Amino acid sequence: MEDRVKPKTLPGFMELLPNEQILFNKMKEKIEKTYQKYGFLPLDTPIIEDAKVLLAKAGGETEKQIYRFEKGENDLALRFDLTVPLAKYVTQYYDKLSFPFKRYQIGKVYRGEKPQRGRYREFYQCDVDIIGDGKLSIINDAELPAIIYDTFKNLGFDDFTICINNRKILNGLFASLGLTEESAEILRIIDKIDKIGKEAVRAELAKEIENKSEQELENDQKLDEMKKIDKIMEFISIEGNNEGKIEALKNMNIENDIFQEGLREIEQLTKFIKIFGVPENYYKIDLTIARGLDYYTGTVYETFLNQYRNLGSICSGGRYDNLAGFYTDRQMPGVGISIGLSRLFFQLIDNNIITADEQSIADVLVVSMSDEYEKVAEIASKLRENGINAQVNIEDQKLGKKFKYADNLNVKYVIVIGEDEIKNNVVSLKNMDTGEQQTIALEDVLKTVNNRH
Amino acid sequence: MEDRVKPKTLPGFMELLPNEQILFNKMKEKIEKTYQKYGFLPLDTPIIEDAKVLLAKAGGETEKQIYRFEKGENDLALRFDLTVPLAKYVTQYYDKLSFPFKRYQIGKVYRGEKPQRGRYREFYQCDVDIIGDGKLSIINDAELPAIIYDTFKNLGFDDFTICINNRKILNGLFASLGLTEESAEILRIIDKIDKIGKEAVRAELAKEIENKSEQELENDQKLDEMKKIDKIMEFISIEGNNEGKIEALKNMNIENDIFQEGLREIEQLTKFIKIFGVPENYYKIDLTIARGLDYYTGTVYETFLNQYRNLGSICSGGRYDNLAGFYTDRQMPGVGISIGLSRLFFQLIDNNIITADEQSIADVLVVSMSDEYEKVAEIASKLRENGINAQVNIEDQKLGKKFKYADNLNVKYVIVIGEDEIKNNVVSLKNMDTGEQQTIALEDVLKTVNNRH
Repeated sequence: MEDRVKPKTLPGFMELLPNEQILFNKMKEKIEKTYQKYGFLPLDTPIIEDAKVLLAKAGGETEKQIYRFEKGENDLALRFDLTVPLAKYVTQYYDKLSFPFKRYQIGKVYRGEKPQRGRYREFYQCDVDIIGDGKLSIINDAELPAIIYDTFKNLGFDDFTICINNRKILNGLFASLGLTEESAEILRIIDKIDKIGKEAVRAELAKEIENKSEQELENDQKLDEMKKIDKIMEFISIEGNNEGKIEALKNMNIENDIFQEGLREIEQLTKFIKIFGVPENYYKIDLTIARGLDYYTGTVYETFLNQYRNLGSICSGGRYDNLAGFYTDRQMPGVGISIGLSRLFFQLIDNNIITADEQSIADVLVVSMSDEYEKVAEIASKLRENGINAQVNIEDQKLGKKFKYADNLNVKYVIVIGEDEIKNNVVSLKNMDTGEQQTIALEDVLKTVNNRH
Repeated sequence: MEDRVKPKTLPGFMELLPNEQILFNKMKEKIEKTYQKYGFLPLDTPIIEDAKVLLAKAGGETEKQIYRFEKGENDLALRFDLTVPLAKYVTQYYDKLSFPFKRYQIGKVYRGEKPQRGRYREFYQCDVDIIGDGKLSIINDAELPAIIYDTFKNLGFDDFTICINNRKILNGLFASLGLTEESAEILRIIDKIDKIGKEAVRAELAKEIENKSEQELENDQKLDEMKKIDKIMEFISIEGNNEGKIEALKNMNIENDIFQEGLREIEQLTKFIKIFGVPENYYKIDLTIARGLDYYTGTVYETFLNQYRNLGSICSGGRYDNLAGFYTDRQMPGVGISIGLSRLFFQLIDNNIITADEQSIADVLVVSMSDEYEKVAEIASKLRENGINAQVNIEDQKLGKKFKYADNLNVKYVIVIGEDEIKNNVVSLKNMDTGEQQTIALEDVLKTVNNRH
């Protein structure tokens, strides 16, 4: 053929080698099994949706990143998250669902971001959400940290912290100070505290608030600028354990209903997180986290590996008052979390926190000295009947090459069949880790290999 | 909000209710576990590929159905099968793979077909393929029917037949008759035998062969038209068991190397299928199946549910000489099968062969009489620690509504906590199938519920 095409994968698209894929899939399965343990139902909505439906609420940056195209007369788009499809789904099938509707979805989403190391255009999100019909108890917000805890424990992590906050506390505080308009900017400044220190934050806040204060005078004439800054500094300086922080928030005496509601919510939240089985050293109130997205209206979550804070939050989410407002009149409050698995997997491999070197699918590779293929097929078949993942290599290759093959696939055991083995009704079993080789009856192979599980 | 969008799913896109999704996922998982039992490695290639790479070989109908679009400067396309991405993958990562490369991939593919009942534009394919480097033993072709058998057994089917044939037998026969050019049309006629009967097939063959015979005279002057038709009728009239068919093929005395090679292959194939553990009543040689696709060059497979032949083949595949010829000089023969799971699932539900009515994720729903939510959280947490899928309902709802909720979710057990239960350190356990309710200690709940598994 003359017109050969050079095969390549698009930049920003994750494509793994088999051993990495095995590990990735194991992580995905552990996440799924954990979500199921809490009774969440699976969904698998289409990747392609009607663009008008998918982009009902989107705008700005999201819209630019979207994969949108026409096919025939249809204006189509690829989903950019799993939340909008969920909103669509609960509106569309409202009559057939039971609320609170608890669902998980694990699937690929698409964002045409500028490709950077560890940022993907096609990536897996692993979401759980609880959607209420009209209202939804705050206790649900406490179950999600239990799911986060359980999931990362099952993934093999021990040293992580689930940070929780409540947007109502932030919004109420800023409202009480007449700084609602500036809240986004103030949060941005507060977020730098670890990097630039308290005094620099105070200076930047002063600059921000002085700039704006003239317009604010009407809204809030009780506090002067200095007092506002003091109040914010007092707020972000709150330390101690969860009870201590709640106590300190109460002592701030903020006379704002939203603030007080947020405070009551976070108090109940921390109590119930414990009852749902999360040890106290795995979660804490962090008054500085806000989550950028507009739609969170109450509880927010971020999760950090304590020894790898630099990876950023590995599991985030929160409470939203109204999931599907752009599709329906029905008020559907929800709370959910999401793990960005593709990015997390890349980061864990890249930082040597996990390694895929030893991953395999087959427990045993069955091969023959020369052309004893019938015996190979027969033995593989017996192993499989006994629940063992058995692979055959029945190619016309030298034995050394077959051992090399087993080695490449990280298979732990190789069974070799030759004339002698057939005559004596035994097999040669080699343990590829230890190099140990023994001639034994097939029944004993079943015992040895099954011990591995 | 004024600008509400009506939520809808695109026609031709499968979107299931949760109970159906649970069943679908169980089937997908069973297929995956079976593929793994044979040592196949998982792949998960991107859904979006460079259009030039993906369409290197495509043309005609495929090209029209493709989802192809531009994003920035990139010409993109959605994969329409899992075979082309495999060809790309093995060429691209050749140096890092071990051959024979055995991989499975289960994922969504996209074809913009005209939507019809049970035909989807987004659908799951579940593929296994074995790819050789330069050559690949015919014994591999015998392992695939074992995988088909094992898979459908695991899916709960008992009465199905794997039909096998070899394109070389067909090609060799037609070549020996000087009918290579007409072979596609002849196969189309043969395919109608069940519908129109032998005599009508003979009549149509006569018409086809007479039309073309003048051009063929040079190629084959040994046989006249009548003898050609007799030979084809002899071929398609071959009956009996597999050994009988092979014997009859031998007795046809076709002097054509390709025919004889196909005959040797199918003889070895049927022998090894048995050794790989497939009972003889589950597979048979069917000389009339050919598979439409051009790229099969040897063994072909189709699988039928005997009581639902009308569903068509539920698992098909075959051997191809050269997987990646449009990407590389390297000869990479392969053999593989594919299950079109979305369509199969639709057909099984639609024909009442399976039902999703009783599917659930949670084993137990934990609820309270009034506001004993702490106890609910505590008990759910204990159940989960013991491997039980436990869901809570901690909404401010009447007890009757919570039982209705459990019923809708097909949960088998409901635990109810009230003041009395807390005082006496017991729980009320209701079996939703039998209606039986008992007041027992939590430890006894663990025993009762675990017995279910």
